[in-house]
Amino acid sequence: MATIDIEISEVGPRDGLQSIAPVMPTAAKKAWISALAAAGIPEIEVGSFVPANVLPQLADTAELVAHARAIEGLAVAVLVPNLRGAENALAVGPHKMTIPLSVSETHSLKNLRRTHEQVLQEVRAIRAAIDALPAGQRPRLEGSLSTAFGCTLEGVVPRDKVLQMAEKLIAAGCDEVGLSDTTGFANPVQVRDYTRRIWGLLGRDRLNGIHLHNTRGQGLANVMAALEVGLTTIDSSMGGIGGCPFAPGASGNIVTEDLVFLLESQGLRTGVNFERLFAARRILAEALPQVELYGFTPQAGLPRDFVAATPQ
Amino acid sequence: MATIDIEISEVGPRDGLQSIAPVMPTAAKKAWISALAAAGIPEIEVGSFVPANVLPQLADTAELVAHARAIEGLAVAVLVPNLRGAENALAVGPHKMTIPLSVSETHSLKNLRRTHEQVLQEVRAIRAAIDALPAGQRPRLEGSLSTAFGCTLEGVVPRDKVLQMAEKLIAAGCDEVGLSDTTGFANPVQVRDYTRRIWGLLGRDRLNGIHLHNTRGQGLANVMAALEVGLTTIDSSMGGIGGCPFAPGASGNIVTEDLVFLLESQGLRTGVNFERLFAARRILAEALPQVELYGFTPQAGLPRDFVAATPQ
Repeated sequence: MATIDIEISEVGPRDGLQSIAPVMPTAAKKAWISALAAAGIPEIEVGSFVPANVLPQLADTAELVAHARAIEGLAVAVLVPNLRGAENALAVGPHKMTIPLSVSETHSLKNLRRTHEQVLQEVRAIRAAIDALPAGQRPRLEGSLSTAFGCTLEGVVPRDKVLQMAEKLIAAGCDEVGLSDTTGFANPVQVRDYTRRIWGLLGRDRLNGIHLHNTRGQGLANVMAALEVGLTTIDSSMGGIGGCPFAPGASGNIVTEDLVFLLESQGLRTGVNFERLFAARRILAEALPQVELYGFTPQAGLPRDFVAATPQ
Repeated sequence: MATIDIEISEVGPRDGLQSIAPVMPTAAKKAWISALAAAGIPEIEVGSFVPANVLPQLADTAELVAHARAIEGLAVAVLVPNLRGAENALAVGPHKMTIPLSVSETHSLKNLRRTHEQVLQEVRAIRAAIDALPAGQRPRLEGSLSTAFGCTLEGVVPRDKVLQMAEKLIAAGCDEVGLSDTTGFANPVQVRDYTRRIWGLLGRDRLNGIHLHNTRGQGLANVMAALEVGLTTIDSSMGGIGGCPFAPGASGNIVTEDLVFLLESQGLRTGVNFERLFAARRILAEALPQVELYGFTPQAGLPRDFVAATPQ
């Protein structure tokens, strides 16, 4: 496997597909996930263990985990909203499970129908379920700090609340936390500041990644701040599909294709091959012809004489 | 006038309108320019002194300069391709004239139909024309280093060539130079590196501004690099209209509305009022209903409880 400077965590199969009405056929999802992995994407969030009546688009998550687990070198991530979801996930063995906690409690109630304390209780139970597994079979557990940079319902989310929730998630048994700009409110000053403060509070190994949205076109500018401060994992979605269905007006993940270009153009290795990445995009476009795909780089193509940091 | 940290130079009326087929009526242009100025945009490039048969969209530039000059506090900029254009400009008295020089000589021949030496000769003649004016009536003359970060025709544009051309433009009589990513090839490392090297060569006051494109979605990420290195003037275009008609596939100025949000959200004062900025966008949209406007912030609106750095 190629040396990687920045790890891209592709969330399209989960965060992307959950936000759109059409259901992508399982065979197409498998082809897409395989194509993303073949392009060099090191981690893919393949789905979410939520009840099929809530998100029918993701009902095949268990099958996708099994498919993705068979791909050499790929880290397979899933979202789990609670213990039941985690138990279903653990049965198929992902490498990483992410449980979201909305720092805005109003958003938490609306999104997960749970108070902070109820979410933390689920985390503790999930931790126990993980620890009951033999060593070597235990997935990493990440607590995602949703609405960390502001909330469409509550407005300002106090920074102290973010730090407090980060601390509580770790205390409850998460291996790490992630910052998530669920609503597209984040600015570069916040990204740097919150990262440094969480590191100061919990240690640098407790926060590696950030999930940014492009709701106000600020996604890659905020990535620049994330790189400057030293974060090493960036979530993104192929074609920019998805966002948060429970945060009105807050659509738009950052676009994997443009993110890869941003990183590779400044000498940061992602391990990704552009030609194969664009091939994976074509699979997505063909499977979901009615869904608008974002991204400038696939349209413009690579610059003449472009040399990527990752050997192509 | 409000204190400003970063100066936005709106190039829509020139770089935007020259790239689209429909001709915006002069009255609508005047209303748009007035609205942009009323929103607090400190500098507007209102047009280009090129022959009307080359760019009929900009045939009313002289009238627009006169209109914009009457707006208190607004810096009025124009593009001039040569001495003849500059003479026509000087007759109406803009505050700033920009002459482009394509560092890629192939692009220079195709765009301006001139070799480097021929462009530099024009610069010398323009300098003489400016110096013939009484002190106090002399506009600032900027040499714009087009295709500085790469060229769709030549590919890699050697950095040494950029530095050499910067030096020659100053020697020929420009007051300052500007970096221009005509083709959307720039990356953050280049932005920081080229800026520092030009400063090292010519002094910090010889380079203040940068003109970035969003061709590969990298516009605001490159703005982050420009801010980090300390550039203080950023070109942008309302609705992201425009690009370079002579660089195939290289469309897309960065969007003024999203740029203002990026700056204000991280505490950098632009002097701009968002409500009035969005009002100016509506004037543009109504005058050119067939033209697609880019920009996420006008669609998403400002975040709940958002506090801009500039008093609103």
